[in-house]
Amino acid sequence: MKYNDLKKQIERKKTLLCIGLDTDMDKMPKHLLEKEDPMFEFNKQIIDATHDLAIAYKPNTAFYEALGHKGWLSLEKTAKYLKSRYPDILNIADAKRGDIGNTSAKYAKAFFETMDFDAITINPYLGKDAVSEFLKYENKWVILIGLSSNPSSYDIQLIQEIESRDYIFEKVIRYGKWWGTEQNMMFVVGATMSYKLRQIRHIIPEHFLLIPGVGSQGGNLEDVCKYGLNKNFGLIINASRSIIHADNSENFAKVAREKALGYQTQMAKIIENFNKKGRRRRR
Amino acid sequence: MKYNDLKKQIERKKTLLCIGLDTDMDKMPKHLLEKEDPMFEFNKQIIDATHDLAIAYKPNTAFYEALGHKGWLSLEKTAKYLKSRYPDILNIADAKRGDIGNTSAKYAKAFFETMDFDAITINPYLGKDAVSEFLKYENKWVILIGLSSNPSSYDIQLIQEIESRDYIFEKVIRYGKWWGTEQNMMFVVGATMSYKLRQIRHIIPEHFLLIPGVGSQGGNLEDVCKYGLNKNFGLIINASRSIIHADNSENFAKVAREKALGYQTQMAKIIENFNKKGRRRRR
Repeated sequence: MKYNDLKKQIERKKTLLCIGLDTDMDKMPKHLLEKEDPMFEFNKQIIDATHDLAIAYKPNTAFYEALGHKGWLSLEKTAKYLKSRYPDILNIADAKRGDIGNTSAKYAKAFFETMDFDAITINPYLGKDAVSEFLKYENKWVILIGLSSNPSSYDIQLIQEIESRDYIFEKVIRYGKWWGTEQNMMFVVGATMSYKLRQIRHIIPEHFLLIPGVGSQGGNLEDVCKYGLNKNFGLIINASRSIIHADNSENFAKVAREKALGYQTQMAKIIENFNKKGRRRRR
Repeated sequence: MKYNDLKKQIERKKTLLCIGLDTDMDKMPKHLLEKEDPMFEFNKQIIDATHDLAIAYKPNTAFYEALGHKGWLSLEKTAKYLKSRYPDILNIADAKRGDIGNTSAKYAKAFFETMDFDAITINPYLGKDAVSEFLKYENKWVILIGLSSNPSSYDIQLIQEIESRDYIFEKVIRYGKWWGTEQNMMFVVGATMSYKLRQIRHIIPEHFLLIPGVGSQGGNLEDVCKYGLNKNFGLIINASRSIIHADNSENFAKVAREKALGYQTQMAKIIENFNKKGRRRRR
């Protein structure tokens, strides 16, 4: 998927929403447990019920790996379903992988060939090696973790460097800008860290950002958009649990749609105001 | 597995060797490709041929994920085989996971319950959340990536903090020491970084270190032992490709044994000298 396709999708659907498929067997509606593959069945129904409200889906691999190879099969089926049924929608593997060169090549194969994901989240701790192999693929994306949404992101990400006085997360964003382009590199910035977005937009005015932490984690949508939007929108805003596990009855997909519609309605207003004010004045 | 069991295993077998099961389908002996599960068959033969020379095995998840759910099944079978057949040997998932709390709990379930690994490598970039859920398990280990063996480890890990002037990898090791104990926490330090080991041993004299990068990556075994050994040995030294893919004929397991024996012989000498000199004098 290309940068412009993403922008056009946002314009058409009036949404910045990414739905996190953190599908949790412990929260699964009971009637699905009888199915052969409850996780895939759940995802399929969620996707079918919300696809017009979202520009991206993002399964987190942990939830699938907890079920072993059967969970991994559910993940494969989910990626394949998204790609074949809704090819315009960005499908992101939230895998947070990161390894040395020859091993990274195997991860790239796993997520971009064996499964046809458009994008993968990458942990920057191992440096450039963690991303290089992924950037060799055309029309695929690396989403580098800059500043995560959890409180303990402070431990490493908010350490300041001795020379530049940059925070580690800023170094990561500068590296990422240098390693890739705005056509193949995005960055994770937690919604709970929206006060850092202005500073981040100075470094990367053009790049897309993936923003987790709206919803259950308490990040504020208005603030994120105020400081994060750029002339091409440039934001993919994720909510997971607060949408997909809002209800665990037979109505789960309907309720998920209502929750997603809630986000999309807010986002459509923000986009409308943003268009009115004139995007050109903003960077 | 407990700290003392690991120490006793080293004394008994006179080896510090961990064999990395980075089993690569592109380097698979041809005669195994006809088998139903070539990766597991390969691993089983490698393990059976080398188990008396190694204290640990370490499959890297990337190589399995490249094959999708079938690869994940091979990984599960490998972990199960190790646990049932050679329960004294440490089995490490080289997964380099790291995520926020509720997601980390799912990864912990995947590797410590769904599969019965003794240990998992963890990426510290997300801070304490990345390890907390794993540390709730008894007799299991977190192996935190301190300083990796690849050249681009410099990008983040060798940044100096403004206040303490510590390198990031030192901060990670100090955190890890604080988050866990020497009974449930180890650290990855690349063999190519052996000149940092003296400094690291000042911070964590007691903890075990997992040392990758001997072999194909060019780290020096003598140097690693000189600066890394502690009174309980405290080192697990990994070689992967240089053992398991040394030969791709029908003799692959025999050749792997010869290569492993080469490492074990060197290690036995080092351990013997170390015992002679009196471990007590060294910390």
